[in-house]
Amino acid sequence: MSILVVGSVAFDSVKTPFGEAKEILGGSATYFSVSSSYFTDVRLVAVVGEDFGDGHGRVFDGRRIDLAGLQRRPGKTFRWRGEYGFDLNEARTLETQLNVFQDFSPELPDNYRDCECVFLANIDPDLQRRVLDQVRKPKLVACDTMNYWIGNKLDSLKKTLERVDLFIINEAEARELAKEANLVKAANKILSWGPKTLIVKRGEYGSLMFSDSTVFSAPAYPLESVFDPTGAGDSFAGGVMGYLAANHLSCSSGISDSGLRQAIIFGSVMASFNVEAFSLNRLSQLSYNDIANRYKEFKKLTHFEDV
Amino acid sequence: MSILVVGSVAFDSVKTPFGEAKEILGGSATYFSVSSSYFTDVRLVAVVGEDFGDGHGRVFDGRRIDLAGLQRRPGKTFRWRGEYGFDLNEARTLETQLNVFQDFSPELPDNYRDCECVFLANIDPDLQRRVLDQVRKPKLVACDTMNYWIGNKLDSLKKTLERVDLFIINEAEARELAKEANLVKAANKILSWGPKTLIVKRGEYGSLMFSDSTVFSAPAYPLESVFDPTGAGDSFAGGVMGYLAANHLSCSSGISDSGLRQAIIFGSVMASFNVEAFSLNRLSQLSYNDIANRYKEFKKLTHFEDV
Repeated sequence: MSILVVGSVAFDSVKTPFGEAKEILGGSATYFSVSSSYFTDVRLVAVVGEDFGDGHGRVFDGRRIDLAGLQRRPGKTFRWRGEYGFDLNEARTLETQLNVFQDFSPELPDNYRDCECVFLANIDPDLQRRVLDQVRKPKLVACDTMNYWIGNKLDSLKKTLERVDLFIINEAEARELAKEANLVKAANKILSWGPKTLIVKRGEYGSLMFSDSTVFSAPAYPLESVFDPTGAGDSFAGGVMGYLAANHLSCSSGISDSGLRQAIIFGSVMASFNVEAFSLNRLSQLSYNDIANRYKEFKKLTHFEDV
Repeated sequence: MSILVVGSVAFDSVKTPFGEAKEILGGSATYFSVSSSYFTDVRLVAVVGEDFGDGHGRVFDGRRIDLAGLQRRPGKTFRWRGEYGFDLNEARTLETQLNVFQDFSPELPDNYRDCECVFLANIDPDLQRRVLDQVRKPKLVACDTMNYWIGNKLDSLKKTLERVDLFIINEAEARELAKEANLVKAANKILSWGPKTLIVKRGEYGSLMFSDSTVFSAPAYPLESVFDPTGAGDSFAGGVMGYLAANHLSCSSGISDSGLRQAIIFGSVMASFNVEAFSLNRLSQLSYNDIANRYKEFKKLTHFEDV
């Protein structure tokens, strides 16, 4: 089953303690689609400016990514500039130039509208619903958001959440959204607003999945060299959704707890590769064997015997 | 096999967002010994002042804790006053009164000296070695420390580490000790100084175990109500050491990776109970069934299928 993703394609300028890169390819839809394309077909909806040349899109070539929904508009592509300290958990945003993203109005090509699996990356919650309105029969809808929308468009975000199955956000955002310091209480509150499942991303500490019936804790892969965390969250979501779309959406009974847990490990695998290099330099160079082997490493990392 | 523990017995005054308690029983040796006494016999070495009455020691009654090594000295018992914000991960120390702890010189009763399993809680590394010097044939030595000793007695601490099998410290301390932001690199550096195994405690994010051959990631138990984190680290160490001493020290081949992983889950279980109430109010009220059931909960929390 294919996945529809709507989000950003951007040029990022990133500084980490280990190096600096200017105007490199980034954006939520970029990371998500490359990550999920290892598992299934992806249909991308985003906007770029006139400065986005053929060379910039080379990372999409030869992958299972449909670019019919990538709009090209007069003006410049969305730009983000940020830096990380030795604590690589959080980026400091130094500059955001929305450019063509300012007036982005996602329009789905007709062949996209039958997609049953949808990922709404971090964009205005109004636009997230505008995308959903164009999808004929959504079966699995996942979304992300950020503190800006929590602070400035909370009512709209809650309307989106009523239509979402799987909500994937950062730990600080979960606490802020629920106005609750305890994460378990925050999760229960958020689940009461609509999503069947909440995944809380915790950076180098892994992730927690909450649903009505279960909690699952997944670690992050302990890496000796974390080079650039940009895009880790979207690579994670790409692994989660890619695996679910490829393996767990055809059965009528929906997604099992067991399938969700496996999906989260695949998400963690993809995020762990992504942070090993700037931009998509590592994420775009994987074999399925690399992915399967790291999945096994997660098993070794977390396994303990019953007593 | 019994465990020898040397550390503090203290009166704590603790303020959390959920309440306040004054001069309640605390101290590393207290938390450690109550926690590990669910698994095996414990021999405690610590010092208290004249203000430590029979009532204060009631928490030790009826447990497998030998108090022959609990010295009583003229003066007042060690006191600590601290508070936690909504982020319960780190205490702000408001006051430390060393009192009788200032001149603490741990002397082992003769029947303690055959203990093969030793936990050196967070005390001056000189004193940690003075204890080791009195133990005839140590088989498993574990120790903790804190930023104060890293900053002020680094050489002495390193001498202690040369004689330690299992080093259990907080994440920030691991980074500070190794002068290395990346935790995997920090762990490898610390392991090169002597310990065969390093356990890094990460509060609500669980723990990581590093050894030459393996890395193990354990979550913390997601609690809806974390009341007071004081003593969590020592309760954790008590679970780890208690389980190892009771189950994995009799075989000549030493402790297996599998046994260490199970021990860390028992440590996580004990820490999760401890934070549910002030002082030892929860930790002292457990049945072995409570402990076994929460161990099973950890299994459910972390389990995922192979693919």
